[in-house]
Amino acid sequence: MMALTSVEKRVLDSMDRKGLVDAILDLVSIESVGGAETPAQRWVMTLMEEVGLEVDSWQLDFKELAKHPGHSTEVDRSSGLGVVGRMGTGLAEDGLIYNGHVDVVPPGIRERWSSPPFEPQVREGKVFGRGAVDMKAGLCSAIFAAKAIKNAGVTLKTPLMIQSVIGEEDGGVGTLAAIMRGYKARGAVVMEPTSLQVVTTGAGCQNFRIRVAGKAAHGALRGEGVSAIEKSIVILSALDSFEGKRNRKKHPLIPGELPFPICVGKISGGEWASSVSEGVLIEGRYGILPGEGLLAAREAFEDALEKASLG
Amino acid sequence: MMALTSVEKRVLDSMDRKGLVDAILDLVSIESVGGAETPAQRWVMTLMEEVGLEVDSWQLDFKELAKHPGHSTEVDRSSGLGVVGRMGTGLAEDGLIYNGHVDVVPPGIRERWSSPPFEPQVREGKVFGRGAVDMKAGLCSAIFAAKAIKNAGVTLKTPLMIQSVIGEEDGGVGTLAAIMRGYKARGAVVMEPTSLQVVTTGAGCQNFRIRVAGKAAHGALRGEGVSAIEKSIVILSALDSFEGKRNRKKHPLIPGELPFPICVGKISGGEWASSVSEGVLIEGRYGILPGEGLLAAREAFEDALEKASLG
Repeated sequence: MMALTSVEKRVLDSMDRKGLVDAILDLVSIESVGGAETPAQRWVMTLMEEVGLEVDSWQLDFKELAKHPGHSTEVDRSSGLGVVGRMGTGLAEDGLIYNGHVDVVPPGIRERWSSPPFEPQVREGKVFGRGAVDMKAGLCSAIFAAKAIKNAGVTLKTPLMIQSVIGEEDGGVGTLAAIMRGYKARGAVVMEPTSLQVVTTGAGCQNFRIRVAGKAAHGALRGEGVSAIEKSIVILSALDSFEGKRNRKKHPLIPGELPFPICVGKISGGEWASSVSEGVLIEGRYGILPGEGLLAAREAFEDALEKASLG
Repeated sequence: MMALTSVEKRVLDSMDRKGLVDAILDLVSIESVGGAETPAQRWVMTLMEEVGLEVDSWQLDFKELAKHPGHSTEVDRSSGLGVVGRMGTGLAEDGLIYNGHVDVVPPGIRERWSSPPFEPQVREGKVFGRGAVDMKAGLCSAIFAAKAIKNAGVTLKTPLMIQSVIGEEDGGVGTLAAIMRGYKARGAVVMEPTSLQVVTTGAGCQNFRIRVAGKAAHGALRGEGVSAIEKSIVILSALDSFEGKRNRKKHPLIPGELPFPICVGKISGGEWASSVSEGVLIEGRYGILPGEGLLAAREAFEDALEKASLG
């Protein structure tokens, strides 16, 4: 590690660590599950203003965003805010972006949490609560980094822009909106948790929905129907072997046994225990290789499913 | 077929066929999905009174019913009616019971119906609508049979008791309630559709719920979790081979390739497309052999699942 310059040391010494932990606890306690991010975004705006950042905020135009080829979303939103806090003078293009999201995924089965997911606690120097790691701590850290720079009396020659975005967990509509608003820079740091590793590339992903059809019948005569649940097993097994194939290639910058996973996260089907199910919905996340391209990845996915359906 | 006696002929000639079809249409148009049977039961009471039957009706005591070893239910009910119409003098034990249910299963995907499920239609001599066959036509036929006997001026020496029951589709709580109310007879005719075959025995069944546990993780790191959806495939496949084993034995009075089916009617699990699912609920119907006994059947089922879970 390089030695710190005196300016860097001054900034680090100005870090408000207690304020940072308090901020994380406050933000985690706001239940900003995907689609309900506005109170969290307003809280971030207030914090940015207190820190002394210039804040740009705007209502997202979801209709306009949906036209973009990179658009992807799962949650139906009627409204949502974009928030960018800025410090430093000069052209944005010469600056640096910090990007963090406020949305969190649902907390799952409450009984399995050691403490309530939206009542964060500090235990043994760690914050516990839904979204603490992914990524409210990261977002707050960026803002407190800006605060430390301010408090140290350091002036930046190029702008630092902190983007607080929504919808990261379901396709990234908030970051897309920031790009479309004109936020481009020389570099960007995404505040995702990486176990403190610097990560310079990442797998892509796309969420998917698969509808499996069946034919209803009374369960007592189930041979007269076609079970969509039974057919779903064919689809799940096809996804499993497709995943295996795609993960044979390794990427030098993406570690792990399964760098491009296919995760089936949700399944639901059937209306009645005693009826043959006439429909199943499968929802999941499809890992994409760097440089593969969305269209090629989609085609490969659809091909694999088509073969399974015919086979 | 034996020749009809003059009395039988007189009764048949008194059959109000148009009234019967109208009654079926009226009853089908009442959306008596399991748990919402009371309007249909009140309608049946009124019809029975018009026909001239003595009507016994009572509120079901679900707490009391739940204590019975033969109790089984899937739908949460806060209230429900028992309805029995009676004609003829003499001891009930010497009489005959007609048993029919008013509850229907949900209609499934509306778009697949050629006409709305609760707006019945007569087409080519058949009634189309949810529950027309199973079994509002049967129940109405029993009441109109009683009406024909009345209209023909025939007096029965032993009682005819028509039971209109609820909850047949989810375990038979209504028939259990009628038995517990004291309705026993020399014989009973259940008005279930059998393609006009006389059926003197039937497979039993029990509904089941299986909870499959997993361990949550982000979909991008799905190897760190345990997918309850993936584990469910093991369970589904175990149920499939267990069903195969049980259907090797045939029963002389129960025809078909699959006399004792196991139908998985519903599956649901996972909260988010991009999360490893930590729980799946599987619901279905388990066919039971005549004379097998509920306890033995349950044990066999639980054994099969236990082996699959360990294997």
